[in-house]
Amino acid sequence: MQTNNPNPAFGADLEPFHGIPSFLRLPATRELDGVDVAVVGIPFDSGTSYRSGTRFGPRKIRESSLMIWGFNRALNIAPTKELKIVDYGDIGVIPVDIRATMKNITKDTKTILDQDVKVLALGGDHSISLPLLRAHAAKYGELAVVHFDSHPDTWDEEYEDQPYSHGTPYLRAIEEKLIDPNAYIQVGIRGPISESTDITEPEEMGVKIQTIEKVLDGGIPSTIEEIHKTIGDRPVYVSLDIDAVDPAFAPGTGTPEVGGLSSYQILQLVRGLQGLNIVGFDLVEVSPPYDHSEITSILAANLAFEFLSLLALMKQVIGV
Amino acid sequence: MQTNNPNPAFGADLEPFHGIPSFLRLPATRELDGVDVAVVGIPFDSGTSYRSGTRFGPRKIRESSLMIWGFNRALNIAPTKELKIVDYGDIGVIPVDIRATMKNITKDTKTILDQDVKVLALGGDHSISLPLLRAHAAKYGELAVVHFDSHPDTWDEEYEDQPYSHGTPYLRAIEEKLIDPNAYIQVGIRGPISESTDITEPEEMGVKIQTIEKVLDGGIPSTIEEIHKTIGDRPVYVSLDIDAVDPAFAPGTGTPEVGGLSSYQILQLVRGLQGLNIVGFDLVEVSPPYDHSEITSILAANLAFEFLSLLALMKQVIGV
Amino acid sequence: MQTNNPNPAFGADLEPFHGIPSFLRLPATRELDGVDVAVVGIPFDSGTSYRSGTRFGPRKIRESSLMIWGFNRALNIAPTKELKIVDYGDIGVIPVDIRATMKNITKDTKTILDQDVKVLALGGDHSISLPLLRAHAAKYGELAVVHFDSHPDTWDEEYEDQPYSHGTPYLRAIEEKLIDPNAYIQVGIRGPISESTDITEPEEMGVKIQTIEKVLDGGIPSTIEEIHKTIGDRPVYVSLDIDAVDPAFAPGTGTPEVGGLSSYQILQLVRGLQGLNIVGFDLVEVSPPYDHSEITSILAANLAFEFLSLLALMKQVIGV
Amino acid sequence: MQTNNPNPAFGADLEPFHGIPSFLRLPATRELDGVDVAVVGIPFDSGTSYRSGTRFGPRKIRESSLMIWGFNRALNIAPTKELKIVDYGDIGVIPVDIRATMKNITKDTKTILDQDVKVLALGGDHSISLPLLRAHAAKYGELAVVHFDSHPDTWDEEYEDQPYSHGTPYLRAIEEKLIDPNAYIQVGIRGPISESTDITEPEEMGVKIQTIEKVLDGGIPSTIEEIHKTIGDRPVYVSLDIDAVDPAFAPGTGTPEVGGLSSYQILQLVRGLQGLNIVGFDLVEVSPPYDHSEITSILAANLAFEFLSLLALMKQVIGV
Amino acid sequence: MQTNNPNPAFGADLEPFHGIPSFLRLPATRELDGVDVAVVGIPFDSGTSYRSGTRFGPRKIRESSLMIWGFNRALNIAPTKELKIVDYGDIGVIPVDIRATMKNITKDTKTILDQDVKVLALGGDHSISLPLLRAHAAKYGELAVVHFDSHPDTWDEEYEDQPYSHGTPYLRAIEEKLIDPNAYIQVGIRGPISESTDITEPEEMGVKIQTIEKVLDGGIPSTIEEIHKTIGDRPVYVSLDIDAVDPAFAPGTGTPEVGGLSSYQILQLVRGLQGLNIVGFDLVEVSPPYDHSEITSILAANLAFEFLSLLALMKQVIGV
Amino acid sequence: MQTNNPNPAFGADLEPFHGIPSFLRLPATRELDGVDVAVVGIPFDSGTSYRSGTRFGPRKIRESSLMIWGFNRALNIAPTKELKIVDYGDIGVIPVDIRATMKNITKDTKTILDQDVKVLALGGDHSISLPLLRAHAAKYGELAVVHFDSHPDTWDEEYEDQPYSHGTPYLRAIEEKLIDPNAYIQVGIRGPISESTDITEPEEMGVKIQTIEKVLDGGIPSTIEEIHKTIGDRPVYVSLDIDAVDPAFAPGTGTPEVGGLSSYQILQLVRGLQGLNIVGFDLVEVSPPYDHSEITSILAANLAFEFLSLLALMKQVIGV
Repeated sequence: MQTNNPNPAFGADLEPFHGIPSFLRLPATRELDGVDVAVVGIPFDSGTSYRSGTRFGPRKIRESSLMIWGFNRALNIAPTKELKIVDYGDIGVIPVDIRATMKNITKDTKTILDQDVKVLALGGDHSISLPLLRAHAAKYGELAVVHFDSHPDTWDEEYEDQPYSHGTPYLRAIEEKLIDPNAYIQVGIRGPISESTDITEPEEMGVKIQTIEKVLDGGIPSTIEEIHKTIGDRPVYVSLDIDAVDPAFAPGTGTPEVGGLSSYQILQLVRGLQGLNIVGFDLVEVSPPYDHSEITSILAANLAFEFLSLLALMKQVIGV
Repeated sequence: MQTNNPNPAFGADLEPFHGIPSFLRLPATRELDGVDVAVVGIPFDSGTSYRSGTRFGPRKIRESSLMIWGFNRALNIAPTKELKIVDYGDIGVIPVDIRATMKNITKDTKTILDQDVKVLALGGDHSISLPLLRAHAAKYGELAVVHFDSHPDTWDEEYEDQPYSHGTPYLRAIEEKLIDPNAYIQVGIRGPISESTDITEPEEMGVKIQTIEKVLDGGIPSTIEEIHKTIGDRPVYVSLDIDAVDPAFAPGTGTPEVGGLSSYQILQLVRGLQGLNIVGFDLVEVSPPYDHSEITSILAANLAFEFLSLLALMKQVIGV
Repeated sequence: MQTNNPNPAFGADLEPFHGIPSFLRLPATRELDGVDVAVVGIPFDSGTSYRSGTRFGPRKIRESSLMIWGFNRALNIAPTKELKIVDYGDIGVIPVDIRATMKNITKDTKTILDQDVKVLALGGDHSISLPLLRAHAAKYGELAVVHFDSHPDTWDEEYEDQPYSHGTPYLRAIEEKLIDPNAYIQVGIRGPISESTDITEPEEMGVKIQTIEKVLDGGIPSTIEEIHKTIGDRPVYVSLDIDAVDPAFAPGTGTPEVGGLSSYQILQLVRGLQGLNIVGFDLVEVSPPYDHSEITSILAANLAFEFLSLLALMKQVIGV
Repeated sequence: MQTNNPNPAFGADLEPFHGIPSFLRLPATRELDGVDVAVVGIPFDSGTSYRSGTRFGPRKIRESSLMIWGFNRALNIAPTKELKIVDYGDIGVIPVDIRATMKNITKDTKTILDQDVKVLALGGDHSISLPLLRAHAAKYGELAVVHFDSHPDTWDEEYEDQPYSHGTPYLRAIEEKLIDPNAYIQVGIRGPISESTDITEPEEMGVKIQTIEKVLDGGIPSTIEEIHKTIGDRPVYVSLDIDAVDPAFAPGTGTPEVGGLSSYQILQLVRGLQGLNIVGFDLVEVSPPYDHSEITSILAANLAFEFLSLLALMKQVIGV
Repeated sequence: MQTNNPNPAFGADLEPFHGIPSFLRLPATRELDGVDVAVVGIPFDSGTSYRSGTRFGPRKIRESSLMIWGFNRALNIAPTKELKIVDYGDIGVIPVDIRATMKNITKDTKTILDQDVKVLALGGDHSISLPLLRAHAAKYGELAVVHFDSHPDTWDEEYEDQPYSHGTPYLRAIEEKLIDPNAYIQVGIRGPISESTDITEPEEMGVKIQTIEKVLDGGIPSTIEEIHKTIGDRPVYVSLDIDAVDPAFAPGTGTPEVGGLSSYQILQLVRGLQGLNIVGFDLVEVSPPYDHSEITSILAANLAFEFLSLLALMKQVIGV
Repeated sequence: MQTNNPNPAFGADLEPFHGIPSFLRLPATRELDGVDVAVVGIPFDSGTSYRSGTRFGPRKIRESSLMIWGFNRALNIAPTKELKIVDYGDIGVIPVDIRATMKNITKDTKTILDQDVKVLALGGDHSISLPLLRAHAAKYGELAVVHFDSHPDTWDEEYEDQPYSHGTPYLRAIEEKLIDPNAYIQVGIRGPISESTDITEPEEMGVKIQTIEKVLDGGIPSTIEEIHKTIGDRPVYVSLDIDAVDPAFAPGTGTPEVGGLSSYQILQLVRGLQGLNIVGFDLVEVSPPYDHSEITSILAANLAFEFLSLLALMKQVIGV
C-alpha cells in the first residue's frame, strides 16, 4: 500500500510479505540531496555484557516495518509524505574492534549531518550511542538527552580496562562534554544494580533519573511533563534502549530486565516528546535471535515510525 | 476432570495431556438434535495480508481447551452443564478460492442455524466473518455487532480488484446490509493506518469506534457501558480478532499490532457483554505457527469458554 | 483424502490441516467388534532420565498422521483397507506413580488382546514396554523381540532402589521371563555407556546386540538378515525407540544419542521386518516439546503406518 | 562483577556469560557452618497435570541469576553482603515415585534447617511444597503461609486415588496441620475451576483468597495490606507459583492461566512482604522447555533475589 | 566481500550481517538491458495442502544468500562474474485468488523472457510451476523437465473442483502440452501416496520416475546418468521442490516427507545437471516459519547459487 | 551415575537433569596438581562473520555433557578413570577487544601447559585457535595440525585492516611459524569460497586439503589414512570447527555450510585419530542460540568426550 519507493523491485504497492525490505520501503540510497532524514543501520553487537545478536537488529526492523501503513493515526500525520526520508543502509562495523567501529560511526554520521539530514539510527547495542553523540555534538554543541532504558549505562568500566562497551557510553559522553548532565533525563531505570552509587553518582552530576517506580506509580503524563521540564527547548537527542520495555513486550534483547513498561506505555511516552526540539535518535538493543514472532522488532519498527512522525510534526510547526 | 464426552477414546475424566482433542472434550458430531451450541472450526488462512498460519487455529484451540476445568468462577456458571454443546468439526475450506470457501461457510452455518443451534466459530482469518454474517443475517435480519480488533477491517480493497480478504469483510457486510452500522461498535482499534479515512469513513456511516486510547485511558467499565449503549437489546453478533490483544499476550497471530489490551482486559470486556442478546460469535486470527508456549491458543480457548458462559447465562435468564 | 472415519466432524475427505486428529482419521472408539488393530496412546513420561515431554507424544503423532495418504507405495498395500483399525484413545497414566500406571497399561492391553485385536502402542517413554510385554506374554507366551534403540535399556537400576524406569524394562522383562533372550535382538545401540558390562551382560544372557557400527558398516540388508535369523518364525514383539534414529532426524526425544540412523535407514529396517510373525508393537520416546517443525512426529507417524502395513501384509499372506 | 565465590572456575568477576552457573555465583557447597541461607534446587516435575519440564527449573534459574548485579535498588540492600548464602545444589528426586521423593525433600530440608540455615527452594512443580512444609512445620510449628498462585492447589485428588500431585499439597498441609488455615492467604487465584467448591471449601476452612479481581481492581497496596493483616507477626512460609504471573510475562510454566499479574506487580507484591517474619520460601513451576528468551527464568531469578533481600532486611532489623 | 551491487546502501563489501538483502547483493532492478538472468521471487503460499508460510520464502532465501561468497569451488566458476544477474524483486501474488495470481506470474515471466533474460524463480509453493511453465513453453515450445521432489504433483484434483493447487501443476502442464512427458523425469519420489495410480498413471504417460529407492540404492552417479539419458539436449526446465530433501536437512517446508536426500546428495544431483540445455528454474516450497536456524533457506540459497553456476558454465561453453 | 566430583552440590550420582553443570561433573577448580587434562571454556564470539552466540558454547556443552555416561564403548575406555581431569572454568574474554582477549587466552593456556596439563578448549569462535596455538607452540615447537572444518580459515583479512577474526587464524599461525604447513591437514572443506585462491594458496604452502568430496566419495577410512600419513608421529594439535558437520546435525553454529559430514562420520573421523601424538584440542563454533533441542551441544559434548578418550588411550599406551 505504501508507495515510498519508485523502484518496483522493492515491492511498493504490494502486501507486507512481498519484496526487498528497505525501511518502510523507502529508497535505499546514499544520495542525500533534498533529504530530510536518513534511517541508518548500525549492526554492532560486541558491546553487550550478556547476549549478543543485535547485529541482526537493523535488518529485522526493516523487515517488520513493512507492516506499517503510512498514516500515524495517533499523531495525525503521514511522515513519509511530510518528509523526504531514505534508507541509508548500514554503517560498516567491525565486531572485533570497537574503537575502529566507533570511528566509522562518527565519520559516517557526520557526513550525513553535514548535509543537513537528520539521522535515525537503528542498533546494534547501546555502545553505538557514544559515536553518534560525538557526531551530533559536533554539529549541535552540548546536547540535551532523553534516554529510555532500564539501565543507567553510566558505569565507568564493564570489562577490565575497557572504557567502551554498552554499559558505559553515557558516562563517557558526560566526560567528553557531549551531553549537559543537567539536561539529561533517564526514564524507566530499574532492576538490581552493582552498587547504590550506580544511581547516586549520575544524580550528583545533575542527571534526572525517572525510575520505573516513578514512571508507573506517578503515571505516564507526569513523566512526560518531567521530560519537558528537564529538556525545555534545547536541541535534544533521543535514545531508546528497547529493554526499557518489559521483556514480555520486548523479549528480543540482550540484557532483559523484568518489571518494565508495556508497549502502550512506551508509545505514549514517545508520542509525549512532541514539541521538543529533536535533533537525532537512536533505537538500540533489538536482538532478533532472542525475539519470537517478531514482537520486539515490530514494536521497534513502530517506535521508529513514531520518531519519524515527531520529525514530521516539527517540520509542520517550525519548518525544520 | 471433564465428563462432557461419553466416548472414552476422547479421554474424558483424564488429565489435559490425555486423549483426542475435541473442544472441551465435547462430543464430536454433526447430529444436532437438542443441541444448543455448535463449536465450529473454519481453518481458512488465505485472507491474511501478512503472516499465514491461522489454518491451524481451530485444531490448536481445541487442544488448549482441554486445560479448562468446567466451571466459570468469574461468571459463576458451568456452561457445558447448562447447555448442550457439541464440537461440529471443521467446515471445508479451499485455500486457493475464497469465493468457494465463503459459499461453504455460509451454507454450513445456515444448516446449523436452521436447527436453532447457535454457532461459535473458531478461525481462520477474519475474512470468514463475512460468510458467517451472511448466514446470521439470513436468520436474524440486520445485525448489531460488537467487534474487538486492532484494525477496522473496513477497507474497500486490500489486493487489486479483490473485494474479499481479511481487511474488507466489515465494509462488505455494511454494503450488503448484513450489519446496521449504527449498532456496530469496534473496540481496541489502533496502530498506523493507511489513510485518516480508514477511521473517518466508517464513523461517517455510523460505526462507533473505540480506539485503544479511549479504552485504556477511559477504562474498561466505561467501554463496557459504551458497548451496551450502542447495542441495546438488539440481536448481536460478536467478533473477536485476537490481535485486539497486545502481541505480548497474543503473539500467535498474522498481523500483530503493538500497544494493545492485556489478557485480563479482554476477559473483562468479554464478561462485560453479559446481558446482550447474543446470536453468534467468531474468534479469529489465532496463528499457531507464530505462537509460543501455547499462550495465544490458551487465551483463545478461555475466551471461547467465556462466550459459551455468556450463552449459558442467557439461557438461565431468558430460557434461550 | 482419507475416508477412514464416517464421522464428518473428524474431517474425513478434507485436507490434513482440517478436523479433529484421530490417528489416520480412524474411528475413535473402544468398540472392538471385528477390529484387527487398535492404535493406543500411552502418554507416560515420568520414566525418563533426562528430558520429559513424551506425554504429548501420542497426541502429536496422531496430528502428524493426517498428512499420510493411505497407500504404502514401498510395500504396495493400503493398510486401512486391508484391516479394520481403530484409534482406541489413550490409556490413563499417573505421572507420580509408575506402578499404578503399569497396572493400568497391562490391564487395558489385556482387554484389547483378549478380543483378538492387536495393539500398536504410541508412547510415552520406554518404561511402558514392560507392562505391554506382560500383557503380550500372557497371551502369546515368552516373546521374541526386535528392539530398535540407541540404549540397551537393560540396566538393573537407574534411580536408587527403583526397579522401574525407562532404562530398565528389558532386564525386568528377561527376569520375568516375558522375553526369551535368545530370540531378542537390539539394533542401533551406541553412545557412551555406564560400564562395559552394559553391553556384555545382556550378550551373556543371549541377547544379540547390533551396534550402530555393525548396522552402518555392515549395511542395512545384512542387519535385516540378522534380525530374521535371530527371530525366525516365533511370535515377535517390535519395540522402536525413536532415539535409535539420529537426533538430526528425530530431535524430539528425551535422551538423544548422536551418531545414529537416518530416516531412510530406519524405514528400510522396519520394512525389512516383512515376513516376521508380529504380535505387537510399541513406538516410544517421541517428545514433542523438543521437536521442531514436527519432523520427529512425522517420522513416528510414518513408522506407525509402516507397522500397520506389515500387519496388513501378514493378513494377506496368512489371513491373520 | 559479583565476587560471591572465591573459586575462579566459577567465573567470579567476569561477565554473566562466563563460567559455571551456581546461583548468583555463590559457593556450591553443603558445608553450612555459619551459613544463613541455602538455595536448594528440587527438580521434580512428575506432579504436574499438564506440561512437564520443571525438572530443568533450578538449573536454568541459576543460569539466569548471573545477570543480577548484587545490589537491590528497590529495597536498598545487597543480600549477599548482609548474609552468608550458599548454593546447596539439588536434592535428589525420583520422577517415578513421588513418595520416595517427598521423603528425600523433607529429610534434606530438615538437615539444613537443623543447622539454623534458612531454605530458599527452587522447583520443580508445586507438589514439592508439601514435603518442604513438613520440614518447616517440624521446626517452626503450624505455619502461616503467603501463597501466590493462579490455582488454589487445595484439591482433594487430581489423579485417581493419588493424594499427592501439584494440585493437592495445600489441602494435605492443612489436613496434616502444617498450616493454620486462618493465617493462610492465597493471592492471584483465577481461571476456570472444577466446581465452585474449589473456592468455597478452602474459604470455609478459613483460608483468605485474594482472587485476581480483588488484586487488580483493589490495587497492589491494598493486597499487601491484606497480606499483613492475615499473617501478622507469625512465622510465615512464602510459596510463589510462577503461574500467578500472566503467561505473557511467564510463559515457561506447566499450567499457564491467562489474565494474571504483570512482572512489575509480582515484584511489588513480593517487596511488600517486608516486615513479615519469614522462615522459608519456595519458588515453583518454572518450566524452561516452554520458556522463550529466558524471560520466565530471569523473572524467577529476580524474585529469588527479592526473597534473599527480604531475609537480609530481616537480619538488619531483628538480627535473624 | 561481494561487490555485485554498486549501491552502497545494500552493504556490498561488508559482512553478511550488514545491509539490505537482495539476492547475492545483486542490483534490485527491473531494468533488464544486457541482463542474462533475473532472480524472481513469487511469494504465493495458498496452494499448499498442509502448512502455509512459503510466502516468506523469497525474502528469507535472499537474506541467507548473503553468506555465499562468490566463487563456486565445486564447479570452478564465479557466476556473478560470468553473467549479468539482477534481483527482479517479487511478482505480485494474491493469496485469495490462484487464477489471478497465475496470470500475473505468466505475464511477468513472459515480459522477462521476451528480453532474452532467463528466470530463476524462488517460491512460494509448487503451484507456481504451472504459470512459469506456460511462459517458458510459450518461448521454447514443449519442454523437457527435470523435477526434484518427494511428491509427483500430478494429481488431478486436491480440493474439490479445483484444478489448481500445489499437488496438480504437472498433470495440468502435461494436459496443456507444456511438457513432453517422455522428456520429463522426477527424482526423489517417496512416501505414502493416495493410490498406486499416483505413480502408475504418470508412468503410463511416459514420465520417468526415479523413486528414492532407485536414487539411494542405485547411487547418485547413476541417477545423473538417467537424467541425461531422459533429457538429452532438449531445452529443459528444472524444478526443485525443497521437500525432495529429507526434513532433517530441510525442515522448513510445507509437506515434509521423511526418508529423503541429504544436502550433499541434492548438491551433487544439481551439479550433475551440467551439460544440459537449461532454459529456466524454479526452487519452491521453502517455508521459513517452519525452518530453524535458517538451515533450509541456506540450503535453498546454495542450490540457487548452483543453478546460476550451471548457467554460467553454459555461457562459457556455448555462449548463451 | 558419574562420580567424578566429590562435592555433592554438583549432583554426582544423580540423573543428568540434576545439579550444577561442570563438564562431566568434574571438579571445578584451578588447582592443577596431579591433573592430566584441563577442560577450559573460552566464550569469545566477536570473531564471527555472520551469527554471534558462541559465547554461550562452553556453558551449554557443559550442560549437555551430563548426559554422557562415563565409558566409551567404541574406544573401550573410561577417560575419567584413566586420567585426572578438571573443569578449569572459563578464561576471561573481552568481546570488544580481540587483542586483549588473545593475550588472556595465551597467558592462561601457558600457565596450564607449564604445569604439564593438557588443554581441551571449548569455544567460542574459531579466532581462539590462534592464541591457543601460540601457547602450544611455545611448549611444543612448530605444530602439526588436524583441522576439521568447512572453511579453510586461512584468509588474509576478513574485516578491513583487521588481521584477527574467525576467518584468518590459520594463515596467521603459518606466518608466525606456529604450524608447519607440511604437517597440516584440513578435513571437510566445502561450500562457495571467495576466490579459487582460497584453496590454492594454502595448498601451495603445503597444506593438505581434504575437501568434502574427497572425504565422502573416498570414504572415511581413506581419509583417516590420509591424516595419519600427513601427521606421522609429530606432536599434533587438533582443531574441530563444529561446522565441519552438516547443519542438519549441527545447526547451532555461526556460519553453517550445507553438504557436510554426518554425526556418525565425524565421530568415526575423530576416533580415527587414535595413535597420533596429540598435544592439545579445541572444539569451536557451537552457538547455542541457533541450536535446537541441544542437538549441536550434545554432539559437541560427545566429541569432547572422544578427545578425552584419545588422551586416555595415549596414556595407556605411552604413559603420557
